[in-house]
Amino acid sequence: MKPVVSIIMGSTSDLPVMEKAAKFFDEMEIPFEMNALSAHRTPVEVEAFAKEAAGRGLKVIIAGAGMAAALPGVIAANTTLPVIGVPIKGMLDGLDAMLSIIQMPPGIPVATVGVNGAQNAAILAAQMLSLADEGLALRLAGYKENLKQKIVKANTELADVKYKFKCN
Amino acid sequence: MKPVVSIIMGSTSDLPVMEKAAKFFDEMEIPFEMNALSAHRTPVEVEAFAKEAAGRGLKVIIAGAGMAAALPGVIAANTTLPVIGVPIKGMLDGLDAMLSIIQMPPGIPVATVGVNGAQNAAILAAQMLSLADEGLALRLAGYKENLKQKIVKANTELADVKYKFKCN
Amino acid sequence: MKPVVSIIMGSTSDLPVMEKAAKFFDEMEIPFEMNALSAHRTPVEVEAFAKEAAGRGLKVIIAGAGMAAALPGVIAANTTLPVIGVPIKGMLDGLDAMLSIIQMPPGIPVATVGVNGAQNAAILAAQMLSLADEGLALRLAGYKENLKQKIVKANTELADVKYKFKCN
Amino acid sequence: MKPVVSIIMGSTSDLPVMEKAAKFFDEMEIPFEMNALSAHRTPVEVEAFAKEAAGRGLKVIIAGAGMAAALPGVIAANTTLPVIGVPIKGMLDGLDAMLSIIQMPPGIPVATVGVNGAQNAAILAAQMLSLADEGLALRLAGYKENLKQKIVKANTELADVKYKFKCN
Amino acid sequence: MKPVVSIIMGSTSDLPVMEKAAKFFDEMEIPFEMNALSAHRTPVEVEAFAKEAAGRGLKVIIAGAGMAAALPGVIAANTTLPVIGVPIKGMLDGLDAMLSIIQMPPGIPVATVGVNGAQNAAILAAQMLSLADEGLALRLAGYKENLKQKIVKANTELADVKYKFKCN
Amino acid sequence: MKPVVSIIMGSTSDLPVMEKAAKFFDEMEIPFEMNALSAHRTPVEVEAFAKEAAGRGLKVIIAGAGMAAALPGVIAANTTLPVIGVPIKGMLDGLDAMLSIIQMPPGIPVATVGVNGAQNAAILAAQMLSLADEGLALRLAGYKENLKQKIVKANTELADVKYKFKCN
Amino acid sequence: MKPVVSIIMGSTSDLPVMEKAAKFFDEMEIPFEMNALSAHRTPVEVEAFAKEAAGRGLKVIIAGAGMAAALPGVIAANTTLPVIGVPIKGMLDGLDAMLSIIQMPPGIPVATVGVNGAQNAAILAAQMLSLADEGLALRLAGYKENLKQKIVKANTELADVKYKFKCN
Amino acid sequence: MKPVVSIIMGSTSDLPVMEKAAKFFDEMEIPFEMNALSAHRTPVEVEAFAKEAAGRGLKVIIAGAGMAAALPGVIAANTTLPVIGVPIKGMLDGLDAMLSIIQMPPGIPVATVGVNGAQNAAILAAQMLSLADEGLALRLAGYKENLKQKIVKANTELADVKYKFKCN
Repeated sequence: MKPVVSIIMGSTSDLPVMEKAAKFFDEMEIPFEMNALSAHRTPVEVEAFAKEAAGRGLKVIIAGAGMAAALPGVIAANTTLPVIGVPIKGMLDGLDAMLSIIQMPPGIPVATVGVNGAQNAAILAAQMLSLADEGLALRLAGYKENLKQKIVKANTELADVKYKFKCN
Repeated sequence: MKPVVSIIMGSTSDLPVMEKAAKFFDEMEIPFEMNALSAHRTPVEVEAFAKEAAGRGLKVIIAGAGMAAALPGVIAANTTLPVIGVPIKGMLDGLDAMLSIIQMPPGIPVATVGVNGAQNAAILAAQMLSLADEGLALRLAGYKENLKQKIVKANTELADVKYKFKCN
Repeated sequence: MKPVVSIIMGSTSDLPVMEKAAKFFDEMEIPFEMNALSAHRTPVEVEAFAKEAAGRGLKVIIAGAGMAAALPGVIAANTTLPVIGVPIKGMLDGLDAMLSIIQMPPGIPVATVGVNGAQNAAILAAQMLSLADEGLALRLAGYKENLKQKIVKANTELADVKYKFKCN
Repeated sequence: MKPVVSIIMGSTSDLPVMEKAAKFFDEMEIPFEMNALSAHRTPVEVEAFAKEAAGRGLKVIIAGAGMAAALPGVIAANTTLPVIGVPIKGMLDGLDAMLSIIQMPPGIPVATVGVNGAQNAAILAAQMLSLADEGLALRLAGYKENLKQKIVKANTELADVKYKFKCN
Repeated sequence: MKPVVSIIMGSTSDLPVMEKAAKFFDEMEIPFEMNALSAHRTPVEVEAFAKEAAGRGLKVIIAGAGMAAALPGVIAANTTLPVIGVPIKGMLDGLDAMLSIIQMPPGIPVATVGVNGAQNAAILAAQMLSLADEGLALRLAGYKENLKQKIVKANTELADVKYKFKCN
Repeated sequence: MKPVVSIIMGSTSDLPVMEKAAKFFDEMEIPFEMNALSAHRTPVEVEAFAKEAAGRGLKVIIAGAGMAAALPGVIAANTTLPVIGVPIKGMLDGLDAMLSIIQMPPGIPVATVGVNGAQNAAILAAQMLSLADEGLALRLAGYKENLKQKIVKANTELADVKYKFKCN
Repeated sequence: MKPVVSIIMGSTSDLPVMEKAAKFFDEMEIPFEMNALSAHRTPVEVEAFAKEAAGRGLKVIIAGAGMAAALPGVIAANTTLPVIGVPIKGMLDGLDAMLSIIQMPPGIPVATVGVNGAQNAAILAAQMLSLADEGLALRLAGYKENLKQKIVKANTELADVKYKFKCN
Repeated sequence: MKPVVSIIMGSTSDLPVMEKAAKFFDEMEIPFEMNALSAHRTPVEVEAFAKEAAGRGLKVIIAGAGMAAALPGVIAANTTLPVIGVPIKGMLDGLDAMLSIIQMPPGIPVATVGVNGAQNAAILAAQMLSLADEGLALRLAGYKENLKQKIVKANTELADVKYKFKCN
């Protein structure tokens, strides 16, 4: 089994955020890999990873980073695979990381998701992969259908909440 | 008893914020309903709800939402009933939800209250309803009169605080 | 003809923003009045205005203010009529006025619209009035229907934009 | 003993912040009073208080308020005594209250101090009073001299911190 | 020729920003379409568009929106195709639109690019399409190679700038 | 005639902002001086100025500064006279200067006014001076009374604005 | 042993942040001193310290400060030694201190590091010192080499995390 | 003449900001070079430049960048020379670039100056170089002395501004 997505993070302290991506790939049966790389501490390894990514059969890269979050952009600079950036909460509720990731110059985009949004990053990766994988597209549609059940369940629970002037 | 106000939230995790609206309606004897709906997870149900709201006799809709809070605006897009939006605290002290709710394009307003301001949303709804309900107008005036008592009580408590150079 | 809505502003320099409300009331045939009042320069007049508003037959009050925008809140403190606040652009793109208007304490809501959103304030007022005025409700529904035409027109214009690989 | 300064707050929940002002006045032997007043809940009382303040012998007013903090500005609107505003921490680290207090229109200033800065508000009041009270000016100078002792003490404590390459 | 990407905008006033995406698709020879749709003015049409998009052969959707920018999220709610959101500059340098687009709830991601970043949105779409199109992947690699020439040109121009103590 | 207030600015480029203070002092007949001083370029002169200020008969100091606006705080560090700080607009609408001036540590307050609020700084200074000057207090009350006339004039002008459904 | 770097802080409450600088100097064998000084409480001492710093053999000064953080700038005003400023977290996640330190006027720079970044301040100081100290340059290169080991260790730990579809 | 400082920028459009550094080096007689490099467009060249910098005799690197400004950090990742970062104004008054540059992870500092602060970056570089160059230290001291003259000139100009109640 060869990985088609790579999840990159700077240290294991980011794992509690980034593991939501891993769990989603397990659920969707998408082979992936996880690596620790840093644009500032292991720049040579980051460049090598990004340049070899397409050749190794990777299709999408997810990179989580906080603060002056250069990692997603530096990976994007060295590959034409789509790169998804996950701003990790640090200062200003993660706004420093969000701006460091999203405000890329013309020519080198990073697909940025919300703060700590690793699960959404994984769903986005799956959506990209499903463009050429109908089975995955069906599993994704099923996943989305199930999202409604949370709302249905919430509705049922709200029905149990009693107020004197509540009519439903 | 038919509801005249509907309180909408995306999940039961929003209940601790939104129940302040329910409690106020109980106090003012205004029949209401509570529903779980999501602009992003159950968009079809949101549209159906909004389109049928006026026909069902609803007069005002209160919608609480956090983060990229599209719910109040999407409801407003599908009805001419007044829609009150409650930004629920998430990132940047709720500023993300506030801006997502309040900055509506010309033509489709949402009456936005402060972050987590469900009680004020309910009072605002009652003020709208009281335009055609004198009894409610009187109960509202009474409620407002009682607000002063908190200040009077605070004043009494402050009188009990002793400092050497305090004169009252 | 007695006014049912009052548009309040601090000076005629706010007129270019606030006149959008007036124009909408003309279009919807809603009788209104316009007044200049200031929470900081004419506080006695503001209080008198707010206290007498309901008795004079007013149903809704729209108050526009910039910077430390106390006006909408101070009016709301002295009436149980719904008060709609319009933050007028000053510092930080109007964020100072928005926060000064929207973050009201429990008990005294202000229905806040977007920065410089006087037109939306007027639509919101009309929505409130239409709760007891079916003719107005119909005119509002017609107005909303017409909003789509801008998009239809935009679509037609986009159809005229030619690119080599554009298919529609 | 007649008070020369009045400390105003909206509720006793603000007392932990505002009592630093009271303690400073005790230390400087400045007679003061404390009152609970709200621009939004007891607007009539606020106006009466502000209009009578100078006549009662008050020289300076300190008003603490959070969120849409209209209180200091509304007091300033009704008196020519200097009014000192204390933004109380709520949303955005108190930035909502700070902007609501400081951004006053031309003609009606509020002397604003930092977030939760009740002690500095009291020192500022004492500085104003000392313009016509040489004894107080001397006590203030003594107070300021003592501030240095905290730094001297910090220096002594830092001297006790040992590092291998630390030279002092 | 059937379009594989759809560029959505709310009005022709967004065209100066969004046409950079069109130009890039022309350059990369990617068939696309352009449509005007609004989450708040034509919600029914938005839903219909999103639900039919995959069936019509579209692979990626690019949606630009300003202020309370609900459009990209509402489209994403109704399709499993990847949706790329372009925040269009309005208030707070476009931060209101950016937060309204990027902070999506778990389950419904939007791939967000920088403010007014329509060109980068198009490049991102091309990167997704090239996962199953080797010819496009090569054209993209060529495009990226050419980006360096701007820097080479800048270097040449800098060489012509003369200062007394400049050594290159 | 000896000055009782000193207006400090860092350069003549601040004069268009700070001259509003000068004009107000002329109107109120308050003798003042103007000086150029910089906490970062002439620190020794700033310290000397602040230490000698009270001895020279000055009662209040107004200091305008932009960016990393250390000047008001450094003056306050060297005197017990009240110091009024005027944040001058630079970055982030002047928020950098406002925070640099207002967030003083306990013990050393600066009375901060709104961005570019030199006129309000002067009024605040006059309010302080009038605590011991009844003539000035009367002139100030007259000034304040005249502020209402702007609103009266605005009201008259609004009366001249004609709309079909405008009733006043 | 004479110190070549001085670490300045306003009180011992800043020690938990600033001691990271001390520990780094111990590790790099760089003699240093620690002092408590305040731009607002001991301005005379700050000036004396800064003026004598170069003469005492100091090469670099690190100054940590929070809120209206004038200390680094005031030191820089009185010396031509490089001054490194450390914004200490207070309001707005330390953004008040960061802006107060970094936005210096032309002519008087402060080398600013991230919020609470005392360790990076010390590394920066060591980099400056190593320009004339080859032994230190080598130790710094070794230190940097070791930084990679954290990433290597993280990679090993990630390898131990098991998921069904994880391939590495 | 071999350069001791390198000024890096992404394109010639940054030259109007960065040339202030060049002019200062001319004035201080410090040999320098200017290069165009981009962390996102020419990542390989950036890495090569940074790795060879110390060996070529460079002592300090100044890197200006806007938006998601990764350049200074990526250079710092590949050298132990001190790197000075200049945030170039883009979004949010340059706050996006400032946060992208300053919030570096522990171990890899960037000495950040104010927005568009290229002149201060050059002065900071000169201060570092002067640690081992007494002649430069003297020229720097002279430069600093001259800064006061701007204030003296401002004072003279202020003396010429006439007001009725101005005493100096």
